[in-house]
Amino acid sequence: MSDNVMMGQNVIIGENVTFGKDVVIRNNCIIEDNVVLDDGVYIDNNCIIRNDVHLGEGSSVGANCILGEYQMDFYTDHQYHKHELIIGKKAIIRSGCIIYGGSTIGDSFQSGHQVTIREQAEIGNNVSIGTLSDIQGHCKIGNYVRLHSNVHVGMLSRIDDCVWIFPYVVLTNDPTPPSEKEFGVHIHSFAIVATNAILLPGVEICNDALIGAGAIVTKDVHEYEVVVGNPAKVKGDVRDITDRESGEKHYPWRYHFDRAMPWKDYGFDNWFSSLDDEYKKLLLG
Amino acid sequence: MSDNVMMGQNVIIGENVTFGKDVVIRNNCIIEDNVVLDDGVYIDNNCIIRNDVHLGEGSSVGANCILGEYQMDFYTDHQYHKHELIIGKKAIIRSGCIIYGGSTIGDSFQSGHQVTIREQAEIGNNVSIGTLSDIQGHCKIGNYVRLHSNVHVGMLSRIDDCVWIFPYVVLTNDPTPPSEKEFGVHIHSFAIVATNAILLPGVEICNDALIGAGAIVTKDVHEYEVVVGNPAKVKGDVRDITDRESGEKHYPWRYHFDRAMPWKDYGFDNWFSSLDDEYKKLLLG
Amino acid sequence: MSDNVMMGQNVIIGENVTFGKDVVIRNNCIIEDNVVLDDGVYIDNNCIIRNDVHLGEGSSVGANCILGEYQMDFYTDHQYHKHELIIGKKAIIRSGCIIYGGSTIGDSFQSGHQVTIREQAEIGNNVSIGTLSDIQGHCKIGNYVRLHSNVHVGMLSRIDDCVWIFPYVVLTNDPTPPSEKEFGVHIHSFAIVATNAILLPGVEICNDALIGAGAIVTKDVHEYEVVVGNPAKVKGDVRDITDRESGEKHYPWRYHFDRAMPWKDYGFDNWFSSLDDEYKKLLLG
Repeated sequence: MSDNVMMGQNVIIGENVTFGKDVVIRNNCIIEDNVVLDDGVYIDNNCIIRNDVHLGEGSSVGANCILGEYQMDFYTDHQYHKHELIIGKKAIIRSGCIIYGGSTIGDSFQSGHQVTIREQAEIGNNVSIGTLSDIQGHCKIGNYVRLHSNVHVGMLSRIDDCVWIFPYVVLTNDPTPPSEKEFGVHIHSFAIVATNAILLPGVEICNDALIGAGAIVTKDVHEYEVVVGNPAKVKGDVRDITDRESGEKHYPWRYHFDRAMPWKDYGFDNWFSSLDDEYKKLLLG
Repeated sequence: MSDNVMMGQNVIIGENVTFGKDVVIRNNCIIEDNVVLDDGVYIDNNCIIRNDVHLGEGSSVGANCILGEYQMDFYTDHQYHKHELIIGKKAIIRSGCIIYGGSTIGDSFQSGHQVTIREQAEIGNNVSIGTLSDIQGHCKIGNYVRLHSNVHVGMLSRIDDCVWIFPYVVLTNDPTPPSEKEFGVHIHSFAIVATNAILLPGVEICNDALIGAGAIVTKDVHEYEVVVGNPAKVKGDVRDITDRESGEKHYPWRYHFDRAMPWKDYGFDNWFSSLDDEYKKLLLG
Repeated sequence: MSDNVMMGQNVIIGENVTFGKDVVIRNNCIIEDNVVLDDGVYIDNNCIIRNDVHLGEGSSVGANCILGEYQMDFYTDHQYHKHELIIGKKAIIRSGCIIYGGSTIGDSFQSGHQVTIREQAEIGNNVSIGTLSDIQGHCKIGNYVRLHSNVHVGMLSRIDDCVWIFPYVVLTNDPTPPSEKEFGVHIHSFAIVATNAILLPGVEICNDALIGAGAIVTKDVHEYEVVVGNPAKVKGDVRDITDRESGEKHYPWRYHFDRAMPWKDYGFDNWFSSLDDEYKKLLLG
C-alpha cells in the first residue's frame, strides 16, 4: 500500500488493490479485490468498491455509493464473475449511486445522487447524469451529454454528443410490449428533449431538434424541428424561437450557450473549424 | 447460531435470530431480533434486517437494503411495534431497497435498486419490481406481475396476475384531492400499461387491454381495448396490432411471449388447460 | 458529552458536538464536527451527519441518511466549506434521504425515503415531502405544504402555504433550454397540482387553482380555475366539482379537509379569523 493513503476507521481492503498517491478512503468503506485507485482519488464514507474497478486520477466518490455492482450472473452462484468497471479522470460521483461492473465511463463524469447505471453502458467524456436517473445498460452515450434528474435510458439507446435531456424523459425500446424485440432510440447531436417527453421505440431524433415538454414521440423527428403533443406533431422550426426577454433568436443553442461545453472561450465556429472532418460530420450530420 | 453461517466483519446480531444452513452475512450488517434466515440466504454488506423478518430459502439481499422498515408507529415512541415481513424463497432483492414490516411477498420475487415497498402490501409469486418503483402499501399484487422502473402504486391498488406495467406509470387513488376518500385502481390479468400512463382513481383496466404511452385514463377500459391520449380514448383492438417486422399479430401477448411465465416450455393453451376452473376464471374473466 | 446519550456500536463522533438529553445514536453512525443534537433526537443506523448540522428537539432521522451533504465547493479541494443545515423540532426524516448543507427546514417536517434536498432550500413548518422527491435548491416552500412522491422542484421555484402537489409533478425553470436564464414557477396557497402535471418556466398558479393530471401548463392559471390537457386549457371552476359519492361540492378543499392542517379542530373560518391581516392576505390573496 502506498504511504500516501489516508484511511478512516473500519475500512476493509481486499487483495491486490493498487493505490496512487494522495488517495483518501473514509470510514466504513469496503474495497474489494483488484481495485485500482489512481492518484488523488477520494472515496467518502460507507462506499463499496467491488472487484476490478478502476477509478481515474482525481476522481471523487460520494458516500454510500456502490461501484462495480453485481450483474445477474452473481445471483446464480453467489460467486463473482469478472466484469471490469473503468471510470476516467476527475469524476464526481455524488452520494448514493450504483454503477455496475461491465461499463466504461470517460473523463470528467458527473452524477447527481442515487443514479443507477447498469452493465454495458458506454459513456463518453464530460457527461453529466442527474439525480435518480436510471441508465438501463447496453447503451451508448457520447461526449458533453447532459441528462437532468430522473431520466430513464432504456437498453439499446444511443445518444450522440452535446445532447440535452431534461427531467423525467423516458427512452423506451419495446414496440409491442411485452416482446423480445427491442428497438433503441437514437438522439443525434445538439438535440434537446424537454421535461417528461417519451420517446417511443426506435425513433430517431435528428440534429438540433427540440422535443417539447410532455411530447409523446411516435415517429422520427427531422433536423431543427420542434415537436409537441400526444402524438407529437411538428409545431415549427427551432430557429424561429426567440429569447423571452431579449427577443433574439436562441437556437441553434451552441451559439448562445457554452457552459461546460468544449467551445467555451473559443466560440462554436472557431472550435468547430479546428475539428477533423470525420468528427465534424458526426456532430452536424 | 448454525455452524454454517459465514459472517463478515462488524456484523451485529440481535436476540433469537434463527439461521438455516449455508447462510452468508457480509460486512457491517445489522440483524435485529427474531429474524429467521432460511437455508442459503445471502445478505450483502451494510444491510439492516429489522425485527421479525423471515427470509425464505435461497434468497439474496443486495447491499444497503433495509428489510422490515419501521412504520409510522415507531416514530411516536421510538419503540418497535411488531409488524412481520415475510419474503418467500429465491428472492433477489437488489441493492438499496427499503421494504417495510407488515407486508408479505411470495416466492421468486425480484427487485431492481432503490425500490420502496410500504406496509400492508400483499405480493404474490414471481413478481418483479423495477428500480425506483414506489409501492405505497395497502395494495394487492398478484403472480407473474412485472413492474418496470419507477412505477408508483398508490394505496388500495389491485393488480391481478400476468400484468405488465412499464416505466413511470402512476396508479392514483384520490378523486378529489386532497380528500380522505381513496378509490384504488384495479388492473386485470394480461393487461399492459405502457410508459408514463396515469390511471385515475378507481378506474378498472380489463383483461388484455393496452394502455398507450402517456395516456391519462379517466374511465374504465374494456377487454382488448387500446386507449391513448389525454383523456384516453379507444383507438382500436389490441388483436389488430401486428409485429413491426414480421407483420404477424402480437396480441394476446401470451401466445407470443413466455419469458419467466408459467407456460414457458408448455405453450399457453396447454398450461391453461391444466388449471382449475376458479383460477381459469380469475385469469381470463 | 451528555450522560444521557445512548450510543450503538462503531459510532464516530467529531469535535465540538453538542448533545441534549435523551439523544439516541445507533450503530455505525458518523457525526462530524460542530453538530448540535437537541433533546430527544433519534438517529438510526448508518447515518452521516456532516459538519454544522443542527437538529431540533425530538427529531428522528431514519437509517442511511446524509444530513449536511457537501455542495459543489467540496469537490474543488476536498475541504469542508461551511454551510449550516438547520432542521426544526419534531422532524421525521425517513431512511435514505440526502439533505444538503446551506438549507433551512422548519418544525414538524416529514419526509418519505430517498428524498434529495439541495442547498439554499428554505422550507417552512409542517411540510411533508414524499419518497424520491428531488428538491433542487435555491427555492422557497411555505408552511403546511404537502409534496407527494417523486415531485421535482426546480431551482427558483416558490410554493406558498397549504399547497398540495401529487406524484411525478415537475416544476421547470428554463424557457429556452439550454440557457443561463431561469424563471421559477410560483404556486399560490391552496392550489392543487395533480399527478404528473408539468409546470413550464415562470408560470404562476393562483390560489385554489386545480391543475389536472398530466396537464402541461404553459401560461398562468387564475384563481379557482381547473386546467387540463397539453397545452393546458381551462375546463371549469373548481367550485363546481362535486364529491363522487355524496354529490356535495368539495372545493375550496379547506372546508372539506383538515388532516394535519392548522384549522383542524377549529374549522377553517374560525382559524382564519384569528390570523393577522398580513398573513390573511398572503393566504387568500
